[in-house]
Amino acid sequence: MRKVTVKGVGFIPISECWERGVKDLFVEAALKAVDDAETEEIDSLYVANMGGALMQDQLNMGAIMADVIGKAGLPATRVEAGSASGGVAFHEAVKAVASGYSDCVLVGGVEKMSDVLPEVVNSSMVMTEEQEYTAYTGVTKAGLSALLHRLYLEQYATPAEIGMMAVKSHDHAVGCRHAQYPFRMSIERAMDSPMEADPIHMMECSGIGDGAAALILCPGEDGVVVDASVVATDHCSLTDREDPLNLMGVKKAAERAYRMAQVKPSDIDLLEVHDDFTINGILSLESLGFVDRGKAAKLVTNDGTARDGIIPTNTFGGLKARGNPLGATGLYQLAEVTLQLRGEAGDHQVQDAEYGLAQNMGGTGSICSVNILRGGS
Amino acid sequence: MRKVTVKGVGFIPISECWERGVKDLFVEAALKAVDDAETEEIDSLYVANMGGALMQDQLNMGAIMADVIGKAGLPATRVEAGSASGGVAFHEAVKAVASGYSDCVLVGGVEKMSDVLPEVVNSSMVMTEEQEYTAYTGVTKAGLSALLHRLYLEQYATPAEIGMMAVKSHDHAVGCRHAQYPFRMSIERAMDSPMEADPIHMMECSGIGDGAAALILCPGEDGVVVDASVVATDHCSLTDREDPLNLMGVKKAAERAYRMAQVKPSDIDLLEVHDDFTINGILSLESLGFVDRGKAAKLVTNDGTARDGIIPTNTFGGLKARGNPLGATGLYQLAEVTLQLRGEAGDHQVQDAEYGLAQNMGGTGSICSVNILRGGS
Repeated sequence: MRKVTVKGVGFIPISECWERGVKDLFVEAALKAVDDAETEEIDSLYVANMGGALMQDQLNMGAIMADVIGKAGLPATRVEAGSASGGVAFHEAVKAVASGYSDCVLVGGVEKMSDVLPEVVNSSMVMTEEQEYTAYTGVTKAGLSALLHRLYLEQYATPAEIGMMAVKSHDHAVGCRHAQYPFRMSIERAMDSPMEADPIHMMECSGIGDGAAALILCPGEDGVVVDASVVATDHCSLTDREDPLNLMGVKKAAERAYRMAQVKPSDIDLLEVHDDFTINGILSLESLGFVDRGKAAKLVTNDGTARDGIIPTNTFGGLKARGNPLGATGLYQLAEVTLQLRGEAGDHQVQDAEYGLAQNMGGTGSICSVNILRGGS
Repeated sequence: MRKVTVKGVGFIPISECWERGVKDLFVEAALKAVDDAETEEIDSLYVANMGGALMQDQLNMGAIMADVIGKAGLPATRVEAGSASGGVAFHEAVKAVASGYSDCVLVGGVEKMSDVLPEVVNSSMVMTEEQEYTAYTGVTKAGLSALLHRLYLEQYATPAEIGMMAVKSHDHAVGCRHAQYPFRMSIERAMDSPMEADPIHMMECSGIGDGAAALILCPGEDGVVVDASVVATDHCSLTDREDPLNLMGVKKAAERAYRMAQVKPSDIDLLEVHDDFTINGILSLESLGFVDRGKAAKLVTNDGTARDGIIPTNTFGGLKARGNPLGATGLYQLAEVTLQLRGEAGDHQVQDAEYGLAQNMGGTGSICSVNILRGGS
């Protein structure tokens, strides 16, 4: 199996792009990655996208994007895994290089959510839950995470301690030019915001935005290397899970990834976790093994996830403040980890970072990718 | 790069499954493949599906299907490439094994079209075309292929010669227990049927049906081996193509596949081509290199694609008569090729077959997979 290295990254600021289409966004991120990698010798393409069929009436985005980046002819594969599409597509791109099938892969993710009404976004998102027993009830994604949030509140933390996950993500987004919400947010503002799905406040949820991010992968061991790439799943319905606060998919993916990279959580220098709702960021910190059960909200509250904390987390603002363009999100995470490991994170830099981990989830944790990157020494 | 072998296949009869859901179909095919492979040691899953978001309100089918086959926890990836989803998912599954990431992959495809109105199926299908310049016009998939059909008629063949593609596929479906339309159809019936999109008659189009097919892939060189697996793309819009009757994506995929397998078209003993419309089957025969430009309709008419012909094609009825459940179609083709190479094709057997090729297209040829399998000697 060949080692895989990240040759280039590119992404656009997450915002509401009223004057551009989904293809425009993808092209911009792809060309930036090409510039960054200083190569045009791309020999295959992976496209991560979640809701194009529902938001742009567009399927077959592999071929579409190969064409618009000027590379019609290339092999192209669209991967969809809900909001884990980006991380899972990266995993497939890693295999393409590791296997020898490709020598230079562009993996790009895109989602354009501002074109459609919020209810279309919401109904698209809940389609990542099993339809016949869960989604058909009319529950929302926030509603499902609210069940976990309530369970956690009963056992481990106060509302404000969980809400601090959002506050800290906003702290990290300040000055981030690609973040959708690059401003501080107080815990009072979060706690005073309306309920999205009781007990989740609106300001504990990631928002709706448009974005695209891309990475270029090649064989090799120079620069930023992929030391582990893993995907795992969990029971889709919360009622099928023995212990809903234990995200089995996250845990399985992480355990396999640590084994593959031959590291332990304490070796990881920075982390991107899937904080689409505050509770999911909290549970991810625990299921990834960075803190004991029931302790993550306190870790966050006590600045343990700050850039100079025990485990620097969501260093550009995470899903909450950098933004969460669904199919592209996992690739933003991986691009950010790459910048950190290259020492190119500017004001967001985590000092002396060698290992970075990105965790991307779909459904309510029914699918999870964990990728561990290692910086050049 | 490890060699990859097909350990097992499973599929259900294509029909209108009013009393079962999309998960039921997938499970049945998957369990049949598991039985056939005599192993339950599956370590990862690929799911091919095209229109679940539109026809079942279901995204995230990787995790959903891992769960319903009783394997929550496994890595799972949904691949979508229009009606080439099956072939492209197979390609990704091959890389998973070749790379060493997986030792036993289940790749399954499913599509359930009978649940929804035909106009929903049609609008889903045309979403595999580029939306902003092509699909938005209201053209149908048949309408786009009709342009190619008309061009071919002007230069190379009569309507009946092209229509023979459908007649011959029906001949091959007779006695096939998993075929949706296992009966003979005369050329008169095809030519007398109403126009679907002039000059394409209704009886030259594949129909609407539900199906699921699965294969199990492992490392090794025993039994049926994957000698080449390639995906290529073409300009999505017909107006961007220099020569619309030359399917560049098909040609590129085929050329790379022949090189990878170190064979020429004359070494191939049987063929599954993507005859969703008669003209696409005809053009595929040419672009794959089995017959010169403009000669395929005559080859078909003169029985060159019969089971004892020059190049036995669509030996269980092809998309036209076996059926075309979109995301599952490419995996039906590969399962059928496997049966042939094992000598288990019964009345459909092509004698002494060593090499089989399956070609699966999405869009109007904007994406194409070519997989070449070799039988045990």
